[in-house]
Amino acid sequence: ESTNPNHQQKANEIIEKCLPYANKSIRIGITGVPGVGKSTFIESFGKFFTSKGNKVAVLAIDPSSSINKGSILGDKTRMEELVKDQNAYIRPSPSGESLGGVAQKTRETIILCEAAGFNTIFIETVGVGQSETAVHSMVDFFLLLKLAGAGDELQGIKRGIIEMADAIVINKADNENIKNAKLAKNEFSRALHLYPIKESKWQPKVTTCSAFYNIGIENVSKIINDYMSLTQENGYFEIRRNEQNNYWLLETIDQELKTNFYQQTAIKKALEEYGKAIKNSKTTPFKAAEELLKLSKK
Amino acid sequence: ESTNPNHQQKANEIIEKCLPYANKSIRIGITGVPGVGKSTFIESFGKFFTSKGNKVAVLAIDPSSSINKGSILGDKTRMEELVKDQNAYIRPSPSGESLGGVAQKTRETIILCEAAGFNTIFIETVGVGQSETAVHSMVDFFLLLKLAGAGDELQGIKRGIIEMADAIVINKADNENIKNAKLAKNEFSRALHLYPIKESKWQPKVTTCSAFYNIGIENVSKIINDYMSLTQENGYFEIRRNEQNNYWLLETIDQELKTNFYQQTAIKKALEEYGKAIKNSKTTPFKAAEELLKLSKK
Repeated sequence: ESTNPNHQQKANEIIEKCLPYANKSIRIGITGVPGVGKSTFIESFGKFFTSKGNKVAVLAIDPSSSINKGSILGDKTRMEELVKDQNAYIRPSPSGESLGGVAQKTRETIILCEAAGFNTIFIETVGVGQSETAVHSMVDFFLLLKLAGAGDELQGIKRGIIEMADAIVINKADNENIKNAKLAKNEFSRALHLYPIKESKWQPKVTTCSAFYNIGIENVSKIINDYMSLTQENGYFEIRRNEQNNYWLLETIDQELKTNFYQQTAIKKALEEYGKAIKNSKTTPFKAAEELLKLSKK
Repeated sequence: ESTNPNHQQKANEIIEKCLPYANKSIRIGITGVPGVGKSTFIESFGKFFTSKGNKVAVLAIDPSSSINKGSILGDKTRMEELVKDQNAYIRPSPSGESLGGVAQKTRETIILCEAAGFNTIFIETVGVGQSETAVHSMVDFFLLLKLAGAGDELQGIKRGIIEMADAIVINKADNENIKNAKLAKNEFSRALHLYPIKESKWQPKVTTCSAFYNIGIENVSKIINDYMSLTQENGYFEIRRNEQNNYWLLETIDQELKTNFYQQTAIKKALEEYGKAIKNSKTTPFKAAEELLKLSKK
């Protein structure tokens, strides 16, 4: 993960050689707000997969890590058993970069892991908007972890995240929580039926589990198997991977075009001046844009 | 609305001179699927505003008009009374252009109308995603027109549009529809309470009306007045107009950067080749993007 251009070029060559091995895996995105039990779930779920002879890689995307210079996600100390499993590889979020940079590195790591024989890739993220979209755009299956709590389960959930989910798993459904978890399950099931049918033709599922007590984990894996069967049969699996590649191509180009434009010293200065002129009703955004673009071409 | 560069420059000069007159108006976005009675509502609502001494301009954004070479929106023949009103100006959607172009022209027209003394601007659009976002980004208040029908009122509504709405107005609440309209009103009110509080601190309202029988129109205008009082007092009105200007500045730059990049013949050709290479696992989207950007700089 060096930013040295020579290293980058070598990395690119290695990644290209790995590409033919890439497409024999399942990539699962896992999201949920802090406290929902993501680490415990991934540990339990990961152990289930390795026990069936799979090799599991756990990657994390944490948009806040670029500020914190450290990462709370993919924290090895919180996955004690999985970290000792020789068929599992856990990597915390790359740090010190923009979400775009983190996303790119993660996508490259997916390919490397798959070439190294990992056939089950978890991408973990927290419930904060933009990182979800990035994760959603690089996985085959998107899983939302929830808790059953008091009050209205739908309150405060970002609609976009529910729309992305292929499964909602209500965790900590144990002991005195069982009843609430079942109520939440029903409410989410009803809510999911209000959404239009997905392009994958998959009807998102809701289920409960207790990662801590290892209850209901097998059922989650069954849901994912059903999804894989459906989408590999109807061709959506491949269509989606191609779409994702195309998305990342265009996204990378767009980001670079913007970076190249806005990093120019002359543009930075002029942007500030035009900003003031617009605020004081001296010019329009369209006129200002036109003049900034002229300035950039010089 | 000529695309001749000389005309465009002259237009820019005129628009700049109009700018100081621009900020004394209210800009209202009105959306709803075909059949909801938009024309009737705008006629009735517009007449209400002119009867109170206001000057009303009705502009339309129709993304499909660039294909149809004509516009179903802002159709003067469907607003028979308003079109005769000398305090009203109705302009159909500009056609023959991209949504971006249509949006820019409409924003410029808003400024011209305001300089000409129109203090109430309606921007009309249909319920099809992208044009809503464009309209939402140029208005102070966003109004969603709905019908009360049989069945689940929330089914099939694009979530994003509900999130944008400052008011949902259930039209055709007359005769045998009154009961259903009230039920729909309750259901929407409940649904709106599930959303997080808006930056404006405004709690979106739901009301019923019958534009055809001219019932409930005054109440809609009262809601808008309340909104204006709140947002002018708490400063959100000005914050939002500044944000919108900034949005349009960055949006115009981004669009131009992309247009300039993708319209190059060499890029068009190479993009196709790299697309194939990615699909056949010969290269990654990131490597391809890098090489396309190098090609563009030559």
